[in-house]
Amino acid sequence: MGRQVVPLRVLRGRGIEILDQTLLPHREVRRELRDLDAVCEAIRELRVRGAPLLGLAGACGLAIAAESDASTPGLRTAAETLIGTRPTAVDLAACTNAALDRALAERDKHRRPAVLWDFAEQLAEARRREDDAIAANGAPLLPEGSSVLTHCNTGALATGASGTALAVIARAFEEGRIERCYATETRPLLQGARLTAWELRQLGIPGTLLPDTAAASLIASGRVHAVITGADRIAANGDTANKVGTYGLAAVAARHGVPFYIAAPCTTVDLDCPGGAHIPIEFRSATEVGGFGEHRWAPDGLDAYNPAFDVTPAEMITAIITERGVARPPFGESLQRLVRSQDG
Amino acid sequence: MGRQVVPLRVLRGRGIEILDQTLLPHREVRRELRDLDAVCEAIRELRVRGAPLLGLAGACGLAIAAESDASTPGLRTAAETLIGTRPTAVDLAACTNAALDRALAERDKHRRPAVLWDFAEQLAEARRREDDAIAANGAPLLPEGSSVLTHCNTGALATGASGTALAVIARAFEEGRIERCYATETRPLLQGARLTAWELRQLGIPGTLLPDTAAASLIASGRVHAVITGADRIAANGDTANKVGTYGLAAVAARHGVPFYIAAPCTTVDLDCPGGAHIPIEFRSATEVGGFGEHRWAPDGLDAYNPAFDVTPAEMITAIITERGVARPPFGESLQRLVRSQDG
Repeated sequence: MGRQVVPLRVLRGRGIEILDQTLLPHREVRRELRDLDAVCEAIRELRVRGAPLLGLAGACGLAIAAESDASTPGLRTAAETLIGTRPTAVDLAACTNAALDRALAERDKHRRPAVLWDFAEQLAEARRREDDAIAANGAPLLPEGSSVLTHCNTGALATGASGTALAVIARAFEEGRIERCYATETRPLLQGARLTAWELRQLGIPGTLLPDTAAASLIASGRVHAVITGADRIAANGDTANKVGTYGLAAVAARHGVPFYIAAPCTTVDLDCPGGAHIPIEFRSATEVGGFGEHRWAPDGLDAYNPAFDVTPAEMITAIITERGVARPPFGESLQRLVRSQDG
Repeated sequence: MGRQVVPLRVLRGRGIEILDQTLLPHREVRRELRDLDAVCEAIRELRVRGAPLLGLAGACGLAIAAESDASTPGLRTAAETLIGTRPTAVDLAACTNAALDRALAERDKHRRPAVLWDFAEQLAEARRREDDAIAANGAPLLPEGSSVLTHCNTGALATGASGTALAVIARAFEEGRIERCYATETRPLLQGARLTAWELRQLGIPGTLLPDTAAASLIASGRVHAVITGADRIAANGDTANKVGTYGLAAVAARHGVPFYIAAPCTTVDLDCPGGAHIPIEFRSATEVGGFGEHRWAPDGLDAYNPAFDVTPAEMITAIITERGVARPPFGESLQRLVRSQDG
């Protein structure tokens, strides 16, 4: 139905072309990034964002770096630089490190760029398969006639393929199960208002935007039959770090008996992390609070509390939807089973 | 220590001087309003705002009108015009009508201006006593070394005196009990980021601003020892309607055992309203969502869910602080006792 959204295109041997997400929804600007600095800047400034898309951006960044220096120390430094741009983003670190391992396994450094571009292209293809499988696994969980609430952006703009939570919603909509998707604004960076609202329109799904403050009232009103979000990192016990504000939604959903779903690829599950308390949380600049872009509405120089993520405890999560199947509580067992299984 | 914030000064026989709240926090502009049109414009454009302060503005507006036409039809028309500027503002209508009744009880129209100025001055004085009593009753509830979280704006800018929830915080700070006040931005109209942040600075209270989405994470982190907000209407059973977002804060505070306080004058308690389900909730324009002022960040023409208030169930409220004392659960009894008591 909708128009295909392509937030990152691999330009083999040359660089990547990105859709600058900081300028949406008003302007669709595509930028070509041809060196490591440009990729790092784009990640840091959230021109490219979304955990899975960051993984692809990291792998591409390493391929770009290899075009000018494919030596082992050169690639190691480039990987560190890429990973350091967003320290909480597990996909960024995992994909960049996987790309690094693949490159270092090739002794001939002249062949490393080709190895890295192959890896990036395979990753993009794997993501498409993965997202489609998440959508297929998640859609049946949403009963017919559902209205769902989502937070932040988890669509094509976040993964580069069809998305995670938003792909589940889109698939359920295609199957005639979804009547409306409510989207929070998602302060401070407004990914819901800017990106999800824009993607819902591309997909042709009836959408309603709400201030983050209104989500509790919306859930209490009975208008929402499920809440579904993505994840940035899932601990072995099911505790889930996601965009700040997720925990508050989950707490209110739990109080009202509304199912709360996480949709994310198995790479988001960190079996080495025993629980939410062990997930490092990135704190971002105070300038993101009390304004948006150039527009300031708070007094200057104010102290701010601005974590990028919060942690939703496992006991508030109804199910975790992955490309290999749906994990249900107790997550300690079900997640391990899924993650260690062969691709399904 | 802090600087006294005076959002409205009564200039007897002449007019009023207001602090233009639309220009805060960036510019402090005081305007003298000397005729009815100027007062109506200031109310309509939100230069003067806050339920209790609008009541005072309405009474003053009628006194100003009486200076040029104190005839019965003249005053009736002026009162209608004032009330029509913000039709949902209950205090504006109540105080303007009370002033009108007082004026019409005086047969000699030459004496009516003086009657109306007396009424406005008494109203301002009553508000000061009321707010000071709320502050005195509430401050001891906050333990020494507290950090508190508040929502929306409940300070001098809202009431014209010292405020409700913010007055409690200011008093506790003077008494050395408060180390820090966390303030939510309060989307969509950003009263926290624009007004509370500015008032905290005037008061010399260390303040930290946060996106509404970060409040749950802040509470979960253990940094907050109490949440305290104002109220727009309190039902007989203690269910409380307040600025949208309050219910979400209360739900998370309850989960973490953090006390949740309401501070409001007894006029806010509606004993005729049995519970929260009976409180009518105002829904506001979609244009407030997905942007602020002229700045739009969502796609145009999107559907929005934008209630001005939500309802916090009584069981999540630790205590309700009024000028006559502190009501504790069960609120059905304690509120009735306070409201029906003589002024204390």
